[in-house]
Amino acid sequence: MSEGFQLSCPIPIRDYPNVTLAHGGGGRLMHDLISRMFFAAFGTNAAQSHDGAVLVPPTGARLAFTTDSYVVNPLFFPGGNIGELAVYGTANDLAMCGARACWLSVGFILEEGLPMETLWQVVQAIALAAQKCGAVIVTGDTKVVDRGKGDGVYINTAGIGVIEHDLDIGPAGLQEGDAIIVNGDLGRHGIAIMAQREGLALETEIESDCAPLWPQVCAMLEGGIEVHCLRDLTRGGLSSALNELASASAHRLFVREAEIPVSPGVRAVCELLGFDPLYVACEGRFVAIVKHDHAERAVELLRSAGAPEPRLIGSVQQKGTPEVILRSCIGTNRILDMLSGEQLPRIC
Amino acid sequence: MSEGFQLSCPIPIRDYPNVTLAHGGGGRLMHDLISRMFFAAFGTNAAQSHDGAVLVPPTGARLAFTTDSYVVNPLFFPGGNIGELAVYGTANDLAMCGARACWLSVGFILEEGLPMETLWQVVQAIALAAQKCGAVIVTGDTKVVDRGKGDGVYINTAGIGVIEHDLDIGPAGLQEGDAIIVNGDLGRHGIAIMAQREGLALETEIESDCAPLWPQVCAMLEGGIEVHCLRDLTRGGLSSALNELASASAHRLFVREAEIPVSPGVRAVCELLGFDPLYVACEGRFVAIVKHDHAERAVELLRSAGAPEPRLIGSVQQKGTPEVILRSCIGTNRILDMLSGEQLPRIC
Repeated sequence: MSEGFQLSCPIPIRDYPNVTLAHGGGGRLMHDLISRMFFAAFGTNAAQSHDGAVLVPPTGARLAFTTDSYVVNPLFFPGGNIGELAVYGTANDLAMCGARACWLSVGFILEEGLPMETLWQVVQAIALAAQKCGAVIVTGDTKVVDRGKGDGVYINTAGIGVIEHDLDIGPAGLQEGDAIIVNGDLGRHGIAIMAQREGLALETEIESDCAPLWPQVCAMLEGGIEVHCLRDLTRGGLSSALNELASASAHRLFVREAEIPVSPGVRAVCELLGFDPLYVACEGRFVAIVKHDHAERAVELLRSAGAPEPRLIGSVQQKGTPEVILRSCIGTNRILDMLSGEQLPRIC
Repeated sequence: MSEGFQLSCPIPIRDYPNVTLAHGGGGRLMHDLISRMFFAAFGTNAAQSHDGAVLVPPTGARLAFTTDSYVVNPLFFPGGNIGELAVYGTANDLAMCGARACWLSVGFILEEGLPMETLWQVVQAIALAAQKCGAVIVTGDTKVVDRGKGDGVYINTAGIGVIEHDLDIGPAGLQEGDAIIVNGDLGRHGIAIMAQREGLALETEIESDCAPLWPQVCAMLEGGIEVHCLRDLTRGGLSSALNELASASAHRLFVREAEIPVSPGVRAVCELLGFDPLYVACEGRFVAIVKHDHAERAVELLRSAGAPEPRLIGSVQQKGTPEVILRSCIGTNRILDMLSGEQLPRIC
């Protein structure tokens, strides 16, 4: 399949305009949905259709394994949709382990009455996104819940990635003096979803930053950067990610507000509605914690790999006090706490 | 943890009697739920908390990978609950690939308002079931959807298993003359769910057959049985499983109704309500297709490994006509077709 492909829905819409409970019942209708729509889109060989997929990992390689469910509302939003999110989100979690996504599973929970055409759009988006990540969808599952007991489509993806280097990337790798780098401006995804959901009329539409992160991570690894930790900035935004790292590694982290990129559009909406962009979710942004004298080169490599606005935003300080200190634009220091409650529900 | 452990809910019920949207928001409440409830139950080391788990598979081993979502209604039913189902179901799919379940992911989609105590019961059931399977829950995800947009809890599990033998177990392995064996009586799970859901007052309660299948599969493999294919009898029951195998392998399959075990209780409910037990879902039953002269020994091994009623029920016939022939109790042959629509929705 090539980018932007638009084939007609392989389930005859005239016969089945909407998903029915029987499409999850284990009989002929489910079989048809799986073989005609899913196998076709995901390039699965029906003859190998079995309860699971058999994989042969490279000899001696470590693997990364992760999962995420996606319940984003609405299903389609500026800059992306639930299908892209489900593939990139899980591939990005693998990238944060320093792993290249290889094999994905897709589990659908469909609501009775979902237009078949909508499902087909989502399935095509999944297929295309997996192709862009270089990953293969090897196994899946389909359930249908009664009308009113779902919200169109929920998707779970799990992924297995291959780790092709010897670094131990994780919170335990943080060292005093390490540089904290962010790959681009914050808050686009959360604000794009909210604007769409609330029907905000913005002068310039804000698009989600939803994107695969492996090319940027790979550029640093292949460029010889000593990467100590990676963390994507999803629910809870930069602030929650840094607090999690501080807590898991027992280090103080220090960041400078003036260095943290936020686009004027996102900043304007945040100011209008009282959101703090440091807490708003992204879907194509991450922090990289790298050896301090590799920081400049890491920023260059990120830029060359397509990172929109890579910036050195701070550093890892001494061990023993797990907290995040933000130096504000006016020069005062304050503790940047984790989000306590809920800012924007169901953004992923 | 030992069997039947009952610890009190680690989230203070007084403060949080129910799941709130904020428990999925990425902030402090979600963090607390994950670290205090999930990490505690699943034995996760919080210091390793990261976007994914890093695994080191045995050198040279093939792996199996599978996923299933669970939307069963009600969450608790005679003989099991959604948590056990989510672990055994995925471990069983791996067993059907001839793989021992090693690593599991758990993704929760929680409905706002779910009693915290209910979640805790489910989480404990998951932990205990994983322990019984010898599998470790290494990664997970939590989402919360608005009240009315879910149905208490939906769970996705994905699993990775290790294949420790050289057999290629799958539909492509079917050969003319192979024996078709079932490990026990059919239909308990579907009927148990339906009886509970519809409030049927049965003289003797029918319990789900929900159980891990790996010990039985392992007994055959270690006993030197040439296993050609395995398939668990979930949605669509024996009939759909055999039709899928016939279709994927292009073989005619022949089974004798008189040899297919169905308990009197299940048979009585089926007759009363017009269900055919050959189409009713099980959660602890499978068919094994084995080399024909290994059949007797396979039945013995299954029995010794705890299979409730292992029986040789038929054979694989010639290639070229993918269909399932049932010889009825009165001696006539008929085509056993795949379930066309929906018999019992949301049984798993």
